[in-house]
Amino acid sequence: MNTAVDPSQMSAGGPRTVTTGPIVGSRKVYIEVPGQAGMAVPVREIALSDPAEAPVHVYDSSGLYTECAPAIDLEAGISGQREAWVAKRGFEAIVPREVKPEDNGFAGDRLVAACPAVRPIRRAAPGQMATQYEFARAGIITEEMIFAAARENLGRAEKLERADGALADGESFGAEIPPFVTPEFVRAEIARGRAIIPANINHTELEPMVIGRNFLVKINANIGNSAVTSSAAEEVEKMVWSIRWGADTVMDLSTGRNIHNIRSWIVRNSPVPIGTVPIYQALEKVGGDPLKLDWEVFKDTLIEQAEQGIDYFTIHAGVRLAYVPLTARRVTGIVSRGGSIMARWCLAGHRESFLYERFDEICDIMRAYDVSFSLGDGLRPGSIADANDAAQFAELETLGELAKVAWDKGCQVMIEGPGHVPMHKIKANMDKQLKACGEAPFYTLGPLTTDIAPGYDHITSGIGAAMIGWFGCAMLCYVTPKEHLGLPDRDDVKTGVITYKIAAHAADLAKGHPAAQIRDDAVSRARFDFRWQDQFHLGLDPDTAQKFHDETLPKDAHKVAHFCSMCGPKFCSMKITQELRAEVRAMEGADDTLSAEAREQGMREKSQEFLAEGGALYVSAAE
Amino acid sequence: MNTAVDPSQMSAGGPRTVTTGPIVGSRKVYIEVPGQAGMAVPVREIALSDPAEAPVHVYDSSGLYTECAPAIDLEAGISGQREAWVAKRGFEAIVPREVKPEDNGFAGDRLVAACPAVRPIRRAAPGQMATQYEFARAGIITEEMIFAAARENLGRAEKLERADGALADGESFGAEIPPFVTPEFVRAEIARGRAIIPANINHTELEPMVIGRNFLVKINANIGNSAVTSSAAEEVEKMVWSIRWGADTVMDLSTGRNIHNIRSWIVRNSPVPIGTVPIYQALEKVGGDPLKLDWEVFKDTLIEQAEQGIDYFTIHAGVRLAYVPLTARRVTGIVSRGGSIMARWCLAGHRESFLYERFDEICDIMRAYDVSFSLGDGLRPGSIADANDAAQFAELETLGELAKVAWDKGCQVMIEGPGHVPMHKIKANMDKQLKACGEAPFYTLGPLTTDIAPGYDHITSGIGAAMIGWFGCAMLCYVTPKEHLGLPDRDDVKTGVITYKIAAHAADLAKGHPAAQIRDDAVSRARFDFRWQDQFHLGLDPDTAQKFHDETLPKDAHKVAHFCSMCGPKFCSMKITQELRAEVRAMEGADDTLSAEAREQGMREKSQEFLAEGGALYVSAAE
Repeated sequence: MNTAVDPSQMSAGGPRTVTTGPIVGSRKVYIEVPGQAGMAVPVREIALSDPAEAPVHVYDSSGLYTECAPAIDLEAGISGQREAWVAKRGFEAIVPREVKPEDNGFAGDRLVAACPAVRPIRRAAPGQMATQYEFARAGIITEEMIFAAARENLGRAEKLERADGALADGESFGAEIPPFVTPEFVRAEIARGRAIIPANINHTELEPMVIGRNFLVKINANIGNSAVTSSAAEEVEKMVWSIRWGADTVMDLSTGRNIHNIRSWIVRNSPVPIGTVPIYQALEKVGGDPLKLDWEVFKDTLIEQAEQGIDYFTIHAGVRLAYVPLTARRVTGIVSRGGSIMARWCLAGHRESFLYERFDEICDIMRAYDVSFSLGDGLRPGSIADANDAAQFAELETLGELAKVAWDKGCQVMIEGPGHVPMHKIKANMDKQLKACGEAPFYTLGPLTTDIAPGYDHITSGIGAAMIGWFGCAMLCYVTPKEHLGLPDRDDVKTGVITYKIAAHAADLAKGHPAAQIRDDAVSRARFDFRWQDQFHLGLDPDTAQKFHDETLPKDAHKVAHFCSMCGPKFCSMKITQELRAEVRAMEGADDTLSAEAREQGMREKSQEFLAEGGALYVSAAE
Repeated sequence: MNTAVDPSQMSAGGPRTVTTGPIVGSRKVYIEVPGQAGMAVPVREIALSDPAEAPVHVYDSSGLYTECAPAIDLEAGISGQREAWVAKRGFEAIVPREVKPEDNGFAGDRLVAACPAVRPIRRAAPGQMATQYEFARAGIITEEMIFAAARENLGRAEKLERADGALADGESFGAEIPPFVTPEFVRAEIARGRAIIPANINHTELEPMVIGRNFLVKINANIGNSAVTSSAAEEVEKMVWSIRWGADTVMDLSTGRNIHNIRSWIVRNSPVPIGTVPIYQALEKVGGDPLKLDWEVFKDTLIEQAEQGIDYFTIHAGVRLAYVPLTARRVTGIVSRGGSIMARWCLAGHRESFLYERFDEICDIMRAYDVSFSLGDGLRPGSIADANDAAQFAELETLGELAKVAWDKGCQVMIEGPGHVPMHKIKANMDKQLKACGEAPFYTLGPLTTDIAPGYDHITSGIGAAMIGWFGCAMLCYVTPKEHLGLPDRDDVKTGVITYKIAAHAADLAKGHPAAQIRDDAVSRARFDFRWQDQFHLGLDPDTAQKFHDETLPKDAHKVAHFCSMCGPKFCSMKITQELRAEVRAMEGADDTLSAEAREQGMREKSQEFLAEGGALYVSAAE
C-alpha cells in the first residue's frame, strides 16, 4: 500500500493525507449492475497463480481508497454515484442551520476549518416520501436497494454455476436466506422492518449497504477524535483505515473541540454509513452537565447532524425513569455512556426521559433526512454477572415498543444489544430481541463471553460475536484489544476489525450463506497445493500472513516450496497426501459407492504398481 | 518475573536457565489437603487492594517455577511429592532399555547429554494393578485422584459459603458437574472411562490433574525442538513458558537429533503431563521411510518413551486401510502427520495398519507404565470443506471400538478430534464422539471455524474451541497465530495459551462450573471500583493489561483515577453509576418488589434532596 505519509509529518501532528492503494494481492474492480446504466458495485478481486483457479471476488467496503491510484481530494470529498439518485427525488434544498460556536466545542482559535466540499442540503417536506422504509412500504424499489442487492449477491452466481454448486448447508435458526438476493427481496425485507439501508439523503458519497438477518453479517468500527486534533486528514484516516480492513459502517464517537467540522470531513469522504450518538454532542453544548440537557438542545443537535449527512443515530430512548433502580444492585451498574447520562437526568429531576417523551418528534426529524434509528441499549450489562437481568430486558421491551412507533412514522430502525454475556445466555438475547422488536435488525457489542482477560477482549468478544451473528445478529460492533484499558491505536483498530471479520464470516458460513464458503475453499486449495502467495492474498490480512511465513522461511524459494516449516519436507502430510491422492484417484476405491471387494481389488493392483515403482515417498528439501 | 537469562547467552545459543518468578500481582501458595499428610495442591493467590475483597485463588499448572525464589536445578529435576505414592505400590525396578544411537537421531558429535537426574525405572508386572483406571475399577482411590480432586475444588467451598453463594447457572448439555468434587467422584469418573489422570508411574515429578467432561476444561500446548538445539535448558524453557501462562499439559512433538535426551530433560523438570506421538520417532529410526516402519521399531519406541515417563501417547490406530480411499476426494486430503504416514504405509503395502492389528500389544505395554492413550484422529478434516465427512466419522467409530479394547486391557483413554469445523457442525462432532466412544474424554485441536484468516488462527480456532468446550470437550489443544504459516516463537506460544485459557474458561462459565464466575466477578468489581491494579492482576495476562493502560494513561496517578481513557473524566459512565447507586440504594426504589407507587414516592423525595444539593455530577480530571 502506498501510504503517502512521511514520518516527519506524522510526528509533526499527523498525516496530511490518508492510506491508499490496494490490499496486497488484490485489485479493486467495479461490476456493472445489469440494466442499471452507470451503476457499478465495488468488489475486491484476488487473482490466483493457478490458471485453473478463477479469481476470487470478495465483498468490499473500502471505497475508492483501495484503487490503484485513486485521485483523493479530501477538500472536495467523494463524488458518489448516489447524488443522481437522490437528486431526482425532488427534495427541497434548504438553508442549513447556522453553525454555532458550541457545535465545535468553542474551539476558538483552535478551530479546525470545516470541509469546503459544497453539497446541497436536502430535507423531505412533510408527507413527501424520504426513507428507504417509506419507499419499500409503497412497493418502490430504490437504487439503494438495487445496489445493496448486487453487493450481497457476490459469488452466488458463480456458486450456482459451479459443478460443486450445491448450496451450502447451514443452520440459520429461522432466518430466510435466499439463494439469490433480488432488489425486490431487499425491498420486502425493509418493508417488514427486518432490514435497513442506513442512507441519509445528505450523504450522497455513500455506497449503500443493507443490514439485516437475511443478509451477510456486517461489522462496525468505532472511531473518535484525538484530544488534540492535529489535522482533519488524521481524523479522516481513522475512517479510511477501518474500512480498508473491512468495517461496513463507522461510528464517530468524538467529543470536545471541533467535532462539527471534523464530522464534515469524515462524512464528505466516507463511502460507508456513519453513525453517531447525538447525546454526546448535546451534552457538550450544555457544558457537560446532564441536568442542563433539554429537548431544545437535543433537537438542535439532531438537525445539525442530520443536515451533515449522518446515516444513523444511537438514541437511548429506552432508559426510562422506572428502570434506573433496577440497575442499583448490579455488579457494574450502567456502563453505557448515553445510558448513564440519561439515567442521571431522569433520576435527578425525577422525570421521564425526554428522549422517550419526545420520541414522535425525534422520528419526524430523522424521517425527513432518512437517518436510521439505532435504538441504544443504555442499560446493557457491563459484566458477566449482570447479563440478561431485569434492567436489560425491561429496556429491550421498551425498544421494541419504540421500534413500532418509528416504523409508523416511516423511519428505519435497528436495535442495539450487549455487551457482556456468557455463552449459554447469548441465544436468549437473540431470541428475545427478535420477539420483542419485531425482527428489527440486532446490532450488538461483542458480547464478551468472559471478563478475565483484559488486553484480549477482542478475543473474549469475538467468540460471542461469532455466535450471536450465527443466531441472527445483523451487525457486530467491534471490540479492540485495548477495550477497558485505553484508546486503540492504528494496530488495535486493525486487529479489532479483522477479528470481527472472522466472527462475521464464521457466522455467514454457519448460517449457510450460499457463497460464503467460496473463499474458505479457495484458501484450502491454495494451502493443499502449496500456493503460498495465493494463501496469503486470499486471507483477511495478507501482510501479516506473509510476514509470519517469512519469519521461519524467508527465502522466496520457499514461497513455492512443497512443504512448510511446521513439518518440514520429510514430514509433510499434505505432500504425502497429494501423492496418495494420485494413486487412490486412479483406483475404483475412490468411488465410495463401490463394493468393498471391488475396492480391495483396485487397491491390490495399485499397491503392486506402487511397490514396483519403488514407492518413493518424500520430496527432498531441495525440491 | 526474573528470567535469569542474559542476552549474550541468548544470542550465544539460547538460555542456560528458565523463566522463574511469580506472575505479576500474585504469589504461589500450596494448600494442604485435609487428612492427607504432606499433600498440598498448588494455587495462585491474587491479593486485592480492597480490604473488603478476599484474595482470589486461581487454578495453577505452572509448577515451582512461579514461586518467588524457586531452587531450580535442571540437572536434578523436580523432586515431586508423587514419588512416595508410587514407591509404595511395589512396582519392580527394571534395568532400562539401552539407549541406541537412533534414539537421538544419530546425533554423533552433536549429541546433547541426557538429563543426569537418576530415577528408578518402574514397570508393573503382569497382573499387577498399575493404571489409574485399574485402581478406579477396583474401587481404590489413589493419591492422584485425591490431589486432582482438590485442585478441581478450588473456589467451590468459598462459593458455597458466600452470601451470593447460589451455584452458577449454565447449560452443560448432559454433563454431570457436581457442586463439590470428591476423590470418590474422580474415581467413579475414571472407572467409567469418562475421565483420565495422565500419570506415567515413571513421571513422579508430576502434579496430577484430571481430564474429563465433568471437570474444568483443560488446554494443551505443543512444543518442538529447534533445528539446532543450543542447550537443553532452551528446550525445557519452552515447556516452562507454556505452563507459566496456563497450559495444563504439554506435547513434545520434537523430531530429528537428540530427541531422546532432550525428552529426558523435559520430563524430569515437568510438573504437567507430557504427551508425544511415538510414530514420529519411530519413523526417524527407519530413516524417514514409512515403508520401513514395522511393529518391532514401533514397539521399541513405545517402551523407550514409556520408561522415560511420557504420560500419554497419540496412537493413530484408527487409520485403517479401507478408510484411505475416503480421503481421495477431499479438498485437503489427510493433514495429520501420523495419519498420512500410516495411510501411506497401509496403501503402499496394501496392508491393514499394524497399529490396529497390534493394538492389544500396544495396550499391554502402555498399561504396564500407565501411559494414557490419546487415540489420534489421523483422518481429521484439514479444511471447512472436509468437516464431518465419511473419512472422519469412519475413523471416529473405529476409535470408539479401540477405546473399549483399551479399557478391557486396563488403560486410560482419551480421543482426539478436529481440526477445521464450521460452527454449525461442531456440536455434531461432540455428540457423535460421546456416543461412539462411550464418553471417553474428547481432546480437540481448535476447531477452526473458518479458513480465511491465516495469521489469526488462534482466533478462528478459539471460537470453535470455546464452543466445543462448552458442548463437552475435555481438553483443547491450542493453536498459535503462526498456524499454517511458520514455527511459533515465544510470543506466539503465549498468545496461543492465553487465547485457549479464554476459550476454556468461557466454556467453564457456560457449563455452569460452580466457582468459575468468581474470577469474572472479581474483575468486574475491580473495574467498577476503578481498582486498576487489581483488574490487571486478576487478568490472564497482567503484563499486557498494564502495558495497554500505560500507553494511554502512563502516570501512576491514573492507576487510581476514577475514570478511564475511553470516556475520560467527564463522560465516565461507571463514575456516574457509582453516584447513582448511592442514591438509588437509599431509596425504596432499589427493592424491585416494591409497588410502583412506593418507588415513585421514594424517588420523588430522593430527587428533591439531590437537587437541593445542587446535583453535582462529574468528577474533574484533577480528581
